[in-house]
Amino acid sequence: MVGLPARGKTFVARKIHRCLRWLGHDARLFNAGDYRREMLGAQHSHEFFSPDNAEGKRARLAVAQAALDDMFAFLHGPGEVAIYDATNTTRARRALIVERCARERVTPLFVEIICNDEAVIEATIRETKVRSADYAQMDPEAAVADFRARIAHYASAYEALGPADGSYIKYIDVGAQLALQRTDSELAHVLVRLLMSLRGARKRLWLTRHGESVYNGLGLIGGDPELSPKGLGFAKRLARFMAEHREAGGELVVWTSTLQRTVQTAGQLQMSTVAWRELDEIDAGVCDGMSYPQIEHELPDEFVARKRDKYRYRYPRGESYQDVIQRLLPVVLAFEQEPRPLLVVGHQAVLRAFYAYLTAQPPQKCPHLSIPLHTVIELTPTLYDMEERRHLLD
Amino acid sequence: MVGLPARGKTFVARKIHRCLRWLGHDARLFNAGDYRREMLGAQHSHEFFSPDNAEGKRARLAVAQAALDDMFAFLHGPGEVAIYDATNTTRARRALIVERCARERVTPLFVEIICNDEAVIEATIRETKVRSADYAQMDPEAAVADFRARIAHYASAYEALGPADGSYIKYIDVGAQLALQRTDSELAHVLVRLLMSLRGARKRLWLTRHGESVYNGLGLIGGDPELSPKGLGFAKRLARFMAEHREAGGELVVWTSTLQRTVQTAGQLQMSTVAWRELDEIDAGVCDGMSYPQIEHELPDEFVARKRDKYRYRYPRGESYQDVIQRLLPVVLAFEQEPRPLLVVGHQAVLRAFYAYLTAQPPQKCPHLSIPLHTVIELTPTLYDMEERRHLLD
Repeated sequence: MVGLPARGKTFVARKIHRCLRWLGHDARLFNAGDYRREMLGAQHSHEFFSPDNAEGKRARLAVAQAALDDMFAFLHGPGEVAIYDATNTTRARRALIVERCARERVTPLFVEIICNDEAVIEATIRETKVRSADYAQMDPEAAVADFRARIAHYASAYEALGPADGSYIKYIDVGAQLALQRTDSELAHVLVRLLMSLRGARKRLWLTRHGESVYNGLGLIGGDPELSPKGLGFAKRLARFMAEHREAGGELVVWTSTLQRTVQTAGQLQMSTVAWRELDEIDAGVCDGMSYPQIEHELPDEFVARKRDKYRYRYPRGESYQDVIQRLLPVVLAFEQEPRPLLVVGHQAVLRAFYAYLTAQPPQKCPHLSIPLHTVIELTPTLYDMEERRHLLD
Repeated sequence: MVGLPARGKTFVARKIHRCLRWLGHDARLFNAGDYRREMLGAQHSHEFFSPDNAEGKRARLAVAQAALDDMFAFLHGPGEVAIYDATNTTRARRALIVERCARERVTPLFVEIICNDEAVIEATIRETKVRSADYAQMDPEAAVADFRARIAHYASAYEALGPADGSYIKYIDVGAQLALQRTDSELAHVLVRLLMSLRGARKRLWLTRHGESVYNGLGLIGGDPELSPKGLGFAKRLARFMAEHREAGGELVVWTSTLQRTVQTAGQLQMSTVAWRELDEIDAGVCDGMSYPQIEHELPDEFVARKRDKYRYRYPRGESYQDVIQRLLPVVLAFEQEPRPLLVVGHQAVLRAFYAYLTAQPPQKCPHLSIPLHTVIELTPTLYDMEERRHLLD
């Protein structure tokens, strides 16, 4: 990451980390501020960050070296992507990283966060910095003043990314502009798509499975069954619930899959909805329309293989949870871009995959996440995460 | 489009047109040069294009108006996307377009082509401009000189896109850099992905279906069968053919689907291959593993519906040709980005979809394109298109 303090580097770095990990990459976040507080303690005043403070400079370089050491250890071990969340605002600091990358045969990609909107910067300072351990027990206004002085130190030595900086993505004014250079790798393409979609809108989100289907009643998987009478009852309760809970007068976007049971469930809302093929349930391939006891009986090897690794297991001629995650990416990007509150009526496996993204769970956990029928999961965004409430409508 | 002459606007515009049309959008290309030659005749010398030539300016404005009239007529009729391939290098000209768009409730998106590499510009002039009707029967060197003078006229009044220009994508130095502003629409996202992948590499391409499978022999569709003995014979002939035809010593990239019959076919090459799930055959849903007579007998309504509209027809719980095209987009983008020659071992429906992109056929034609077994389709890029040779290896 590259950018002055309070430009949203950590917000973007965490989104990148979440998205890459969800897509199956072993990615890890290294936050320079955490290293500094760990190694040197918190509560340094702004003078520590002045480019003229030789001792501070040495100490900050040692912090950077420690983070880099850990990053490269991670990358030579299990790691695929290390995200270095630090200012890296001088050419000298970036040269240190690039040289080390060359030596260790790692490909660097810079993501620079630029923000020209004073209101956004002010909000970030008050929301994240003033509450940080750096300013524990300090008066908020004094903290803001000190942090602004810290920013000024960095700004005085700031050298933005340029033609000589290899591969980069500049994310400008909360995604209103992007500037790309040499973004040819597959990873860079994914990041561009993510950053193009990251427009900074925080909105509430409700997730629910369709109402009980005829197949649910019979214990069969897959298919395209209609709702059972019980399922229709849930659809009506869901419509009442959403009428009560959505912000008064506010818009609500409703997404379903293309399968009857989600379309019928959302139908009771009497609102316009968008049907996503990407939200269709996991494809059970040759097992579509079977019951689990039947699979155990007729395809015992499949039954065992699925039990052994439910995340990687792919139904013959069907999908695995890993596959579902890959095809859900467009939905996740559309979610990030959507400014309005959102109701998603989906299916068990596909909502597990989406929920894993939303709540930053490792994707391997997907198959074990609880997404029961006739339950609405309400997610309210906090600074970096989601606050969850579950509503049983049974 | 925005950009000086000979920057590659037409190349990019045609790629955009091809991609959007293939994805199902009713898109049409409007080339200002064609309108000029149609309305005013060819063979204007560079003085016609001087910003100081009042008469030339009036004539060129009339040409632009005629193109715009046709574009908006198209957009108010069947049209979804009109691509206006003209220089549009002055703010005044762009203001004309933006005002007209506002009046006619059409959303403009600018794509500016910038090229700083003199060698690329020189190659474009010699390859496209000197051969144009504008310079018929003129000495090539005189044509180049006149065209350079024409560029100089445009350059003297060039105003690049800036913050006030709304939504834009700048494509710089054959995609080495991109600059994006307000690219929030779904269409803009697709164009960014396309332009990020367009790295200007021209390479030869070979397409073939897998060798005959056990199912082909039995007249069954879908499934994941192995090769028949005849199919294995083809795989061996394919390996010999590729050994003879690939450029001596040059690299060859080999893509297959994840299904056995393509993997086994490519296996005879004894090279590393990439298996794409996106290249898997069209999913026949409930008809997977059936024969056409069986479908006609057991699912007569499906059989008739498919006959009626083979392009839009979606197998129950399976895919349509339209669906296949949507999921093939990552393959098309990877193809555009790949600099090395390429062999794709695929399946009938999925290769029809890919071939339709490569040869700029309307997607509705997909189901009727001939992609027979045991035939290698060799495609060699020309300036804007592909030259085709078919090799029967039977």
